[in-house]
Amino acid sequence: MLKIRVLHGPNLDLLGIREPEVYGSLTLQELDDRIKKHAESIGVHVEIGQFNSEGELVEAIHEARDWADAIVINPAAYTHYSLAVRDAIAAVKVPTVEVHLSNIHAREEFRRESVVAAVCAGQISGFGVGSYLLGLDAAKYLAEEK
Amino acid sequence: MLKIRVLHGPNLDLLGIREPEVYGSLTLQELDDRIKKHAESIGVHVEIGQFNSEGELVEAIHEARDWADAIVINPAAYTHYSLAVRDAIAAVKVPTVEVHLSNIHAREEFRRESVVAAVCAGQISGFGVGSYLLGLDAAKYLAEEK
Amino acid sequence: MLKIRVLHGPNLDLLGIREPEVYGSLTLQELDDRIKKHAESIGVHVEIGQFNSEGELVEAIHEARDWADAIVINPAAYTHYSLAVRDAIAAVKVPTVEVHLSNIHAREEFRRESVVAAVCAGQISGFGVGSYLLGLDAAKYLAEEK
Amino acid sequence: MLKIRVLHGPNLDLLGIREPEVYGSLTLQELDDRIKKHAESIGVHVEIGQFNSEGELVEAIHEARDWADAIVINPAAYTHYSLAVRDAIAAVKVPTVEVHLSNIHAREEFRRESVVAAVCAGQISGFGVGSYLLGLDAAKYLAEEK
Amino acid sequence: MLKIRVLHGPNLDLLGIREPEVYGSLTLQELDDRIKKHAESIGVHVEIGQFNSEGELVEAIHEARDWADAIVINPAAYTHYSLAVRDAIAAVKVPTVEVHLSNIHAREEFRRESVVAAVCAGQISGFGVGSYLLGLDAAKYLAEEK
Amino acid sequence: MLKIRVLHGPNLDLLGIREPEVYGSLTLQELDDRIKKHAESIGVHVEIGQFNSEGELVEAIHEARDWADAIVINPAAYTHYSLAVRDAIAAVKVPTVEVHLSNIHAREEFRRESVVAAVCAGQISGFGVGSYLLGLDAAKYLAEEK
Amino acid sequence: MLKIRVLHGPNLDLLGIREPEVYGSLTLQELDDRIKKHAESIGVHVEIGQFNSEGELVEAIHEARDWADAIVINPAAYTHYSLAVRDAIAAVKVPTVEVHLSNIHAREEFRRESVVAAVCAGQISGFGVGSYLLGLDAAKYLAEEK
Amino acid sequence: MLKIRVLHGPNLDLLGIREPEVYGSLTLQELDDRIKKHAESIGVHVEIGQFNSEGELVEAIHEARDWADAIVINPAAYTHYSLAVRDAIAAVKVPTVEVHLSNIHAREEFRRESVVAAVCAGQISGFGVGSYLLGLDAAKYLAEEK
Amino acid sequence: MLKIRVLHGPNLDLLGIREPEVYGSLTLQELDDRIKKHAESIGVHVEIGQFNSEGELVEAIHEARDWADAIVINPAAYTHYSLAVRDAIAAVKVPTVEVHLSNIHAREEFRRESVVAAVCAGQISGFGVGSYLLGLDAAKYLAEEK
Amino acid sequence: MLKIRVLHGPNLDLLGIREPEVYGSLTLQELDDRIKKHAESIGVHVEIGQFNSEGELVEAIHEARDWADAIVINPAAYTHYSLAVRDAIAAVKVPTVEVHLSNIHAREEFRRESVVAAVCAGQISGFGVGSYLLGLDAAKYLAEEK
Amino acid sequence: MLKIRVLHGPNLDLLGIREPEVYGSLTLQELDDRIKKHAESIGVHVEIGQFNSEGELVEAIHEARDWADAIVINPAAYTHYSLAVRDAIAAVKVPTVEVHLSNIHAREEFRRESVVAAVCAGQISGFGVGSYLLGLDAAKYLAEEK
Amino acid sequence: MLKIRVLHGPNLDLLGIREPEVYGSLTLQELDDRIKKHAESIGVHVEIGQFNSEGELVEAIHEARDWADAIVINPAAYTHYSLAVRDAIAAVKVPTVEVHLSNIHAREEFRRESVVAAVCAGQISGFGVGSYLLGLDAAKYLAEEK
Repeated sequence: MLKIRVLHGPNLDLLGIREPEVYGSLTLQELDDRIKKHAESIGVHVEIGQFNSEGELVEAIHEARDWADAIVINPAAYTHYSLAVRDAIAAVKVPTVEVHLSNIHAREEFRRESVVAAVCAGQISGFGVGSYLLGLDAAKYLAEEK
Repeated sequence: MLKIRVLHGPNLDLLGIREPEVYGSLTLQELDDRIKKHAESIGVHVEIGQFNSEGELVEAIHEARDWADAIVINPAAYTHYSLAVRDAIAAVKVPTVEVHLSNIHAREEFRRESVVAAVCAGQISGFGVGSYLLGLDAAKYLAEEK
Repeated sequence: MLKIRVLHGPNLDLLGIREPEVYGSLTLQELDDRIKKHAESIGVHVEIGQFNSEGELVEAIHEARDWADAIVINPAAYTHYSLAVRDAIAAVKVPTVEVHLSNIHAREEFRRESVVAAVCAGQISGFGVGSYLLGLDAAKYLAEEK
Repeated sequence: MLKIRVLHGPNLDLLGIREPEVYGSLTLQELDDRIKKHAESIGVHVEIGQFNSEGELVEAIHEARDWADAIVINPAAYTHYSLAVRDAIAAVKVPTVEVHLSNIHAREEFRRESVVAAVCAGQISGFGVGSYLLGLDAAKYLAEEK
Repeated sequence: MLKIRVLHGPNLDLLGIREPEVYGSLTLQELDDRIKKHAESIGVHVEIGQFNSEGELVEAIHEARDWADAIVINPAAYTHYSLAVRDAIAAVKVPTVEVHLSNIHAREEFRRESVVAAVCAGQISGFGVGSYLLGLDAAKYLAEEK
Repeated sequence: MLKIRVLHGPNLDLLGIREPEVYGSLTLQELDDRIKKHAESIGVHVEIGQFNSEGELVEAIHEARDWADAIVINPAAYTHYSLAVRDAIAAVKVPTVEVHLSNIHAREEFRRESVVAAVCAGQISGFGVGSYLLGLDAAKYLAEEK
Repeated sequence: MLKIRVLHGPNLDLLGIREPEVYGSLTLQELDDRIKKHAESIGVHVEIGQFNSEGELVEAIHEARDWADAIVINPAAYTHYSLAVRDAIAAVKVPTVEVHLSNIHAREEFRRESVVAAVCAGQISGFGVGSYLLGLDAAKYLAEEK
Repeated sequence: MLKIRVLHGPNLDLLGIREPEVYGSLTLQELDDRIKKHAESIGVHVEIGQFNSEGELVEAIHEARDWADAIVINPAAYTHYSLAVRDAIAAVKVPTVEVHLSNIHAREEFRRESVVAAVCAGQISGFGVGSYLLGLDAAKYLAEEK
Repeated sequence: MLKIRVLHGPNLDLLGIREPEVYGSLTLQELDDRIKKHAESIGVHVEIGQFNSEGELVEAIHEARDWADAIVINPAAYTHYSLAVRDAIAAVKVPTVEVHLSNIHAREEFRRESVVAAVCAGQISGFGVGSYLLGLDAAKYLAEEK
Repeated sequence: MLKIRVLHGPNLDLLGIREPEVYGSLTLQELDDRIKKHAESIGVHVEIGQFNSEGELVEAIHEARDWADAIVINPAAYTHYSLAVRDAIAAVKVPTVEVHLSNIHAREEFRRESVVAAVCAGQISGFGVGSYLLGLDAAKYLAEEK
Repeated sequence: MLKIRVLHGPNLDLLGIREPEVYGSLTLQELDDRIKKHAESIGVHVEIGQFNSEGELVEAIHEARDWADAIVINPAAYTHYSLAVRDAIAAVKVPTVEVHLSNIHAREEFRRESVVAAVCAGQISGFGVGSYLLGLDAAKYLAEEK
Repeated sequence: MLKIRVLHGPNLDLLGIREPEVYGSLTLQELDDRIKKHAESIGVHVEIGQFNSEGELVEAIHEARDWADAIVINPAAYTHYSLAVRDAIAAVKVPTVEVHLSNIHAREEFRRESVVAAVCAGQISGFGVGSYLLGLDAAKYLAEEK
């Protein structure tokens, strides 16, 4: 069975509370349940984690190198400046899908650029919870292709 | 049954021939077959068209206003400068998913900006044929939500 | 009797439907009626056309060269990037008034620059339907002056 | 009867003398006569003033708040940097038409941007004396609509 | 016999009329005659076309893929923003020579950049009619080398 | 007793009227009363003035050099471009506190830069009336330290 | 009694040692004593913490959501790039005052921009220890107003 | 006898007091004496004035149009943004020499650009009092040449 | 004996695995052995550490203040944006040598700028393992000079 | 017989050795032979020189003023920054053709701008040796036209 | 007797021939005669030289270090990019006056910036021959002051 | 025995005299002695030269191609703009080490960019004389590796 690492970046622990008009009212727990249910339905195993610290996110990516067939990552604020996260993704060479709840290309200018995009296989943004679910589908497709 | 308009922008008629190392070796005909097959499998109706002319692409978007529940569009080169396509999408208010075969955020700088993103619901890029198939799923989700 | 060519750019066929909070609820048909009525009241003949295609708009400008005393043009989205429309206006040397329904200088940054302004006699923006009516007055004034 | 405040910015007292190839050979006195005559013909009352000082121009705008139905302003050089004039227009909430003798969008780059445009109803530029006359028409239209 | 496609971009149908101080007084008909005569003298076959529409220019490039040994193109205004034309040239892989009547590098800043140059073999600009004739020579040289 | 000069820049005479959703509904008179009352409570003498003219504001700063222990200034629109005000503050060498009613760093980009900040001791912005009151406290602290 | 969270960003543990000509010779311990004493004098309770890690600072902000009436934060170096800190402040919706020891607007260009300012109520910078004390006053005022 | 208008811009009334390490310790009175003495020695008549207000400086330039053979102006802070002063100089067409006490090209970036330079005959900067004296010589030369 | 702190930034734990065509095939363990052997040969004591977390790297720098005569640091990704690391180096005032395995000035634009360079004594980049060994030599030289 | 000066800029003496994948394997000697042979075939006299020094290149241009009917110049690296070469070409007023072996518009950004283009009649780039031969043809055409 | 080195940069040997509408019709010989005559009249000794080569200009500056009391330099094209000339002037510490025939601040944008200004005492531009003569006066003043 | 070419750029002949607070008080002769002594100690042969002329520096690089195993170059001012030096280094393909006395990344912005870095193996800056000595070590290492 394919194994997929799902990584949430900083402040996603406040999902449902944080600017619900932008990010929706689902809590992180509920989101994770949706992700697990969808994983089950498409027959993949997921391990989910949320990290506020850049260093821990980097290490979680490193750790995935040992076992994951693909990564689905929402780097949140780190999307826009964390070259450390970028280098980590490039280093582990696990196919990676970048996802965003909101359509970052339709927001403030500083949220439109992703410094990690260049080392990810692809990007899905704007579909709320759906971004993660489509991300799992995409990750499965990438992992099977490899 | 949900009805989805799929629109290919300029030069996609040369798919399979055009820079296959970037865009893959599938022809447009084969891509369209994959799209139709996937549409069938998820129970939606699709109408597919390819347009080299900006004006015709604008008019195809206008026309979709009368019947389509959602649009999946790969504006190709027009992604980066066609404010006319942007205004057309904004005008018709049909939920729209922007898709790209390659990961535009990992390419030349001028291909990273999308002037249409701000009026689309979301964007999927980098999964080749998969971008269109995930795009159909997303469009279905958006249309059902509306 | 002075003859004036009135040209509408892309997406104006959806006037009244497209973002009415910005562009008003008048349809293109109603706008054209207002233009014709005003033309009559100031004693000029008008020929009105709407074009979604950049190439057709270019050719409509070329054609006006044979008979029109002045042009009133709302290039819509093409305002901001169509050097082809700019070159067409410069080529025909018919005095041209650029008009905009909304005040483009009070909108998003990319809508504030007009690449055609440099080859037009003047610009009127922000008065809704009034921009066209004032545009006719201005065109008449320019044509009489010539 | 509608009352309209017409405000001339700095250096317009030298009209006719200052770069006549750009601004024409009409003097300010003659321009004001044309404005008054046109005001009479469309049935509005005008009060005209010229100010070289930014502070006095700001105060003239403040003062208009008490009686004017609309303002027609040519901020001249202040167009391009006077945030004080911008804030004054925004503060008084009298509908305001920005006018320019020359087509500022066809001139040096630093003359193309107007920092006051964002708080005016609309802008008319490039028609010489005509800009003011069309400006009066526009102001009347705005005041009647209010 | 080598076959060369010669493509004129928008507004070149007004050659001789359009800003003759920049582009000369030769008409398009006369230019085409010069091109044909030169082609004959160097022993190549030419097919010449002029297009105001971006989409049609894209399709003319696509069509040349079936038979032309080289393309000589003056994209005119599209030189500066048409990524669709750029992608078309890149897609067909026919050796392409970019030509300009005037020296675009000696003109307004926005005319100095060519978005198509990166996918053309070379560029010739500034020699009026001569740019096309030198372009034919260069195209012949490229086609023979291939 | 410490003597503090409080200076209001352009358009603050319309306080309470001007964009109350941004600047609050307090009038300048009421603001000045609050300032005076607070001055009294912390045992400092204040002299308050409001100036629409840049030149008069410059001269008020010069004049303060003769008697004031500190200056509290809200340069309003002049904050963003008046190098004359900046030079005046630098020239008099009276410790100066820059205050703003709204949080200028959370507003339009052109309101985020202060050309006077570099010659002031510090800046307080975003606390409405409170900005002035905190400004008095800060000025007192600076004057006592000198 | 109002409860205020005071947060020091990275390197503030070296206060007194780090560039004393810029930041003063007071140690962090002495600063905290001054803060506590002032808190007592104005009748508020403070909890103070210093964090070198971005992730821990983010989590300290999250934690304050449960009990604090206001936050006073000096994000130090993170001021200029930590969108994670910005998102944390925006998420918890506790009124927040941004403080800086030195006047960041009078320093190197990269220290003038604050990415967190847009989500704070206001900013106080340049008064050394005084910035924190004024920050407490401001925080109290904001918390009482809420 | 040639008549030369010497104009000092804002804050020069504080000469000798204002940043003496940059501008020297001479007072304005002493500077004016030096200017008058030098004028006498080269046989020209001077009229000297200092203005803090932009509007008054504009009007002093206008007024010089009636009698002055040349202008020597140190626009001080207005050098860098006053398009009104620039337009005034352009309007009166009296040959004008721009002078600066310090070498503005060796100072902060924002002091290196002069918006008035383009309409002055020439510029002299960096020689302290000497800039004015050389400016008189230059003005005499220009006035004689005219 | 001189004591030198050697600090590796994020992702260097994957050395040998991470993009070996850029960073070489040596592992971190092997690199550290080379460093230790070289230290021994030049008679200095080294303490080596690797940190993925920005906060821990900051603290490692702080800690070195107590005992190290010099620091050799490869901040990796943090080189380009970590003002926290920069401030830490500036705060501890231990002479610091910045080293990079690859020549950062010959890579992507965003890797060419180092925000920490301004507070380091010098920089060595492009010599692979050699950068560290030369860095030790340089650090020894700096420490002996102090 | 027309006399043409052919000038090679810096590093062209290493032609054939220098990056042959970009500049080809022909040596300068061989290139010069090709140029001479072509000159003969079109009936013009050529004088060829190569210069590594900017000053000598400037002087070679000056010297050509006395006898050459046209100049063909490949300024190599000087193309992108030598205003001295630019001024020399402008000064001598001999019609000049700028040539480049590679298509500079398809290379690194800093190689796309030519500071000499604005004073040359035209530019030919991208045809290897052919650029020089086409350059001779163009120069002949220009010289005959003069 | 004071000794002044006068240095002409590249292309000034063509003075009188080169763009006389910008630089006047005086030849270099005539200019030098005017300089010598003026030097005599103010009692200074001059040594004049013209250099097309940047290296020779650098060395002429070095050489002046041994004997000259001041330098008057017109670096011509090198003004805008020669950091080598800038470093030479900074190195020799002879007071230096930068002069320009035309008003460089009123010309093309790339001619407005001087990279040498920051190390010169002052700058005089726009007075034709007069710039040199005023430059001698200024140099004398600087040398006497030293 | 390995042979290394050491090249000093412009103004280094004034070492010890030129801004000693930046570049130290050692003369070029003394520096060269240090370099030779170190070369001897590590068993390599050095040939040292200093060049003020860009063309001569280019030719010295060309000449090294015939015999040198490595180059150590301090291009001084040419570092920042000489594409001719860059092209020369790229052309000869001798491994090259770029050295700087001062830490160019800690200086004025225009000194931070090196246009030659992209074609050098590595860069060492900031260690004064030490930069050259470390440069020799690095060059030896590169030459041995080749």
